[in-house]
Amino acid sequence: MRQEITAAVKRIREDREHGARQLALEALRALAEVAPDADSGELRDCARALVLARPMMAAIENAMALAWERCQATGDPVKGAAEAIERLETAPDGMTASARGVIPRDTLITLTYSSAVIEVLNRLRPRRVIVSESRPLYEGQRTARALAGQGISLTLITEAQMALFVREAEAVVVGADSVQADGSLVNKVGTHLLALAARAEKVPLYVLAETLKVAAPSQPQRFTVEEGKRHEVTRMRWLEVRNVYFEVTPARLVTAYVTEEGVRKPSDMRRYASEAERRWRALMG
Amino acid sequence: MRQEITAAVKRIREDREHGARQLALEALRALAEVAPDADSGELRDCARALVLARPMMAAIENAMALAWERCQATGDPVKGAAEAIERLETAPDGMTASARGVIPRDTLITLTYSSAVIEVLNRLRPRRVIVSESRPLYEGQRTARALAGQGISLTLITEAQMALFVREAEAVVVGADSVQADGSLVNKVGTHLLALAARAEKVPLYVLAETLKVAAPSQPQRFTVEEGKRHEVTRMRWLEVRNVYFEVTPARLVTAYVTEEGVRKPSDMRRYASEAERRWRALMG
Repeated sequence: MRQEITAAVKRIREDREHGARQLALEALRALAEVAPDADSGELRDCARALVLARPMMAAIENAMALAWERCQATGDPVKGAAEAIERLETAPDGMTASARGVIPRDTLITLTYSSAVIEVLNRLRPRRVIVSESRPLYEGQRTARALAGQGISLTLITEAQMALFVREAEAVVVGADSVQADGSLVNKVGTHLLALAARAEKVPLYVLAETLKVAAPSQPQRFTVEEGKRHEVTRMRWLEVRNVYFEVTPARLVTAYVTEEGVRKPSDMRRYASEAERRWRALMG
Repeated sequence: MRQEITAAVKRIREDREHGARQLALEALRALAEVAPDADSGELRDCARALVLARPMMAAIENAMALAWERCQATGDPVKGAAEAIERLETAPDGMTASARGVIPRDTLITLTYSSAVIEVLNRLRPRRVIVSESRPLYEGQRTARALAGQGISLTLITEAQMALFVREAEAVVVGADSVQADGSLVNKVGTHLLALAARAEKVPLYVLAETLKVAAPSQPQRFTVEEGKRHEVTRMRWLEVRNVYFEVTPARLVTAYVTEEGVRKPSDMRRYASEAERRWRALMG
């Protein structure tokens, strides 16, 4: 395997800072780097290797499968990778356009860090955003920093206060690590609690997600649960510490997916999953 | 006002470590200290002063009202205070007896620190207890320490993981800061989220609460929300930080109250609230 690819696989595997879209872009850029002097077979091998870096992140797999599809369609590895990169890079514009029609502009609540949430909210500029801190790594604080200086009033809370503060919000807005064919959402742990609280208070929950986040049903290791190190939670060494990063929020708690193609119902995700499945089989099969 | 009482009011007001039962006992002990050389009128003034220390904690108010009632009934301030102390001190035995009939003994989940939970679980000895850490002050870690060494297997999680781990539990077991006449529960923030997750997973929620925790409907400032300091959550100084300590969990999410008098439905709380109201009026009215 090319050294650029091995290095990218390692970086992507160890990265706990960036979200699925940013890592998918990193994988695509690694692919684009080798594309100029790779033949079709070699490019496919590289794409397959990158797929295995983060099994929870459908966006990476879908980006690789899309690059491969475009490479096959255009007969040009460079063009194939470039087209996939462009689709991911322009997604925030599309999501913002979709969001304008549906996401309220007064008070929103979110948690963790999502580049889709940052990019869309910095353009929508709601009056106020309540951010849950997202223990143990406090990605919520990073979100607050990324939304600062835009005239948005920011409130930081602990996860424990989410049921109290969801009442002050007109909507929950979160990103997605991936979306499943049944319309359920894979995202940072804590999302399910916020979604339950939102439902109890009749506050809608919108997920900002590129359609490339929708996973093919047969992509392997889909439910592999990534778990962080125990010392992120506590230095107490004599008891079991769990530090699971991702969880599934059921489709019934999602009001809508706000994608670059428009606002979609959870039940619409099956169609995107079928597309992903077709591409995935072409790459892996 | 006697100096012992002024000092006790200050300690109780500033205490963020102990729960409602322990602070009610501290208030009763301060009252017992002045009882030997106080006349009835002076004792009443002391009891009223202690009531005002923590308006969210019905147990303190009820303990003062009970001491006053017993003082009136026995005609003896020392005996009145002593009887109220005994009732609170023996409550954990009663709650444990009630708990044996209803709380499962395999895996339980809890959050924050409650002396009732500690005392009852250390006698029930379930196989495993999952404890949520309870940011920002990590009282959950204190609970884990207090349950250690009893052969109970302990698992520490962040609040964000509560929806994931409630599935592994046979029951949620929490304490109460106070209980309202409508059967709703006032407890550390985060309880409502855990209760919502439990309901979604069909896991029962039991509240260990002395009947003295049930608030009289007309006790004033009931809904005053205590809020902690912002630096407990973050050192970031440029944004609004909220650090609310208590919240109300609706009665519909409570399976049962496990009291020293038996296992009670949320709808039974109205009767205890009426008793508290009667005593409260006798003290304050």
